[in-house]
Amino acid sequence: MKLLDLYAKMKGDLDVIERELARSVTSDHALLTETSTHLLKAGGKRIRPVFVLLAGKFGHYELDVLQRIAVPLELIHMASLVHDDVIDNAETRRGQLTVKSKWDNRIAMYTGDYIYGKALAIVTELSNPLIHQILAKAMVQMCIGEMEQIRDFFNTEQSIRDYMLRIRRKTALLIAISCQLGAVASDAEWPIANRLYRFGYNVGMAFQIRDDLLDLLGTEKQIGKPPGSDIRQGNITLPVLLALRENDIRERLLSEIKQIRQADGEGDTKPALKLIRKSEGIQIAEAMADRYITKAISALDGMPNIPAKKNLTDIAHFVAKRNY
Amino acid sequence: MKLLDLYAKMKGDLDVIERELARSVTSDHALLTETSTHLLKAGGKRIRPVFVLLAGKFGHYELDVLQRIAVPLELIHMASLVHDDVIDNAETRRGQLTVKSKWDNRIAMYTGDYIYGKALAIVTELSNPLIHQILAKAMVQMCIGEMEQIRDFFNTEQSIRDYMLRIRRKTALLIAISCQLGAVASDAEWPIANRLYRFGYNVGMAFQIRDDLLDLLGTEKQIGKPPGSDIRQGNITLPVLLALRENDIRERLLSEIKQIRQADGEGDTKPALKLIRKSEGIQIAEAMADRYITKAISALDGMPNIPAKKNLTDIAHFVAKRNY
Repeated sequence: MKLLDLYAKMKGDLDVIERELARSVTSDHALLTETSTHLLKAGGKRIRPVFVLLAGKFGHYELDVLQRIAVPLELIHMASLVHDDVIDNAETRRGQLTVKSKWDNRIAMYTGDYIYGKALAIVTELSNPLIHQILAKAMVQMCIGEMEQIRDFFNTEQSIRDYMLRIRRKTALLIAISCQLGAVASDAEWPIANRLYRFGYNVGMAFQIRDDLLDLLGTEKQIGKPPGSDIRQGNITLPVLLALRENDIRERLLSEIKQIRQADGEGDTKPALKLIRKSEGIQIAEAMADRYITKAISALDGMPNIPAKKNLTDIAHFVAKRNY
Repeated sequence: MKLLDLYAKMKGDLDVIERELARSVTSDHALLTETSTHLLKAGGKRIRPVFVLLAGKFGHYELDVLQRIAVPLELIHMASLVHDDVIDNAETRRGQLTVKSKWDNRIAMYTGDYIYGKALAIVTELSNPLIHQILAKAMVQMCIGEMEQIRDFFNTEQSIRDYMLRIRRKTALLIAISCQLGAVASDAEWPIANRLYRFGYNVGMAFQIRDDLLDLLGTEKQIGKPPGSDIRQGNITLPVLLALRENDIRERLLSEIKQIRQADGEGDTKPALKLIRKSEGIQIAEAMADRYITKAISALDGMPNIPAKKNLTDIAHFVAKRNY
């Protein structure tokens, strides 16, 4: 099944999620409602809610319960984006002005805090403390990941392992618990929740590597922001680390990165992008993303052969190839 | 009993809280541990943990349970301070450099996020979902309060009601739920938890009014930051709003506030402070704080006459008179 067909099939339930997302951030404070709604309207793939709903199919699927997982997870993702945009000094995301750019950094900070709080208020309507524990721990790890990103800004000597640990915390963990919590909230058996966690974790790793590749390879139209944004912000990603290992590229790329750093966000990234694009780093990173996809799919081995299993496999394949 | 005697009497349990606070922010990320520990070491009255422990005396007092309320509440308070200092551009707090000043705004933002996350991870070790719900809702309200503070910066036309609603969200609510959750976690009867909530809410209101008075009346040594910091940051507090209602002060005070605003944090607050100090606003604000204290104490009427009740009354009286 193509991804669009899957979204079409799930439309009824995803519309409920979308409506609840909008309702969740509506408060008696006009500006907070406005900033949060601005974020929501910028859209997104809602991949976390999709995973929650599909994981729920392995247990007793109740939309009323699952939305209390799906909405908070999407909100936590959104809140982390608002705070990221402050750190990265990003002007646009998904083709729209960021909160920090349309309003200011202070408002972006509290908008993020507010959305985190709303997410928690919704999930605590479910009474299973295990769900709250899993979520809280993931939030701590996400913050550590964000801090590691700051620590590693423009660090061209970081290891591949540093990168992997960082994206694990920053991205993969939240996708992993989306799958896990969908199963837990639906009272699926524990081994199934565990497998779904592993599926989500591996898809999440591939998703982030792919995201980092797109930032280097995509057009502004495809990715909703200028290509090379990562490197301009000091975020040294996997393909760059790999390119830096190639002798005939290393010195020139280092000096380009140095130039970009010194220009403080205004530098020309084109020469660096050109070097990276012709390096083997691109192919190796793609291969590594593919390997995570293979691992994700094999995590589903032995799971009941319900349509949701096929849907998850299809999404995994899509993540491997996505160009938006 | 004097306040110091009370702290001495509770020392054993408060030491456990202190140790757990330190342990809670220790992670495998060195910088986050460092920034969080810096905050902890700056100290504070730990009024929220004190309230949690005293409230716990009205039920089955178990330190092992109560610390999982006390530590998160103090952490949430600390996290909100770190984010506040970014917004207020504050250099010092409690006589120490703030995180945003010792490191930078980005690090302060994620330190706050991290401490929020840690707080949640600890409280979710308790399995009563009511506790999680109360806490999450309070966090949302706190964020709204912070946003209202931004909205009302330098707004000399705001009403007394605006001010009261703001400090209710910003301060009183967290103190109210400190009392309430101490009782809930100890399985105290619901009417008792309710009364403790009302006690905490009223003490919290008085506490913040007193805090705002101290910023206008205290010395730098007493309050750990230069007096007049609120007005310099645009935070128009109750005594100022009251002073602005006095005909012979209003115009001069308005023009002083305008001057402070235009000087963008560098203005001279002395003339404004002098005007406010000689206004009736000081006495009226003190009377309003006293009235909240009276309400707090009467919320305890009919509660069992255990020593903790007397201790709470003593703290309320202290809050009314505190000069640090």
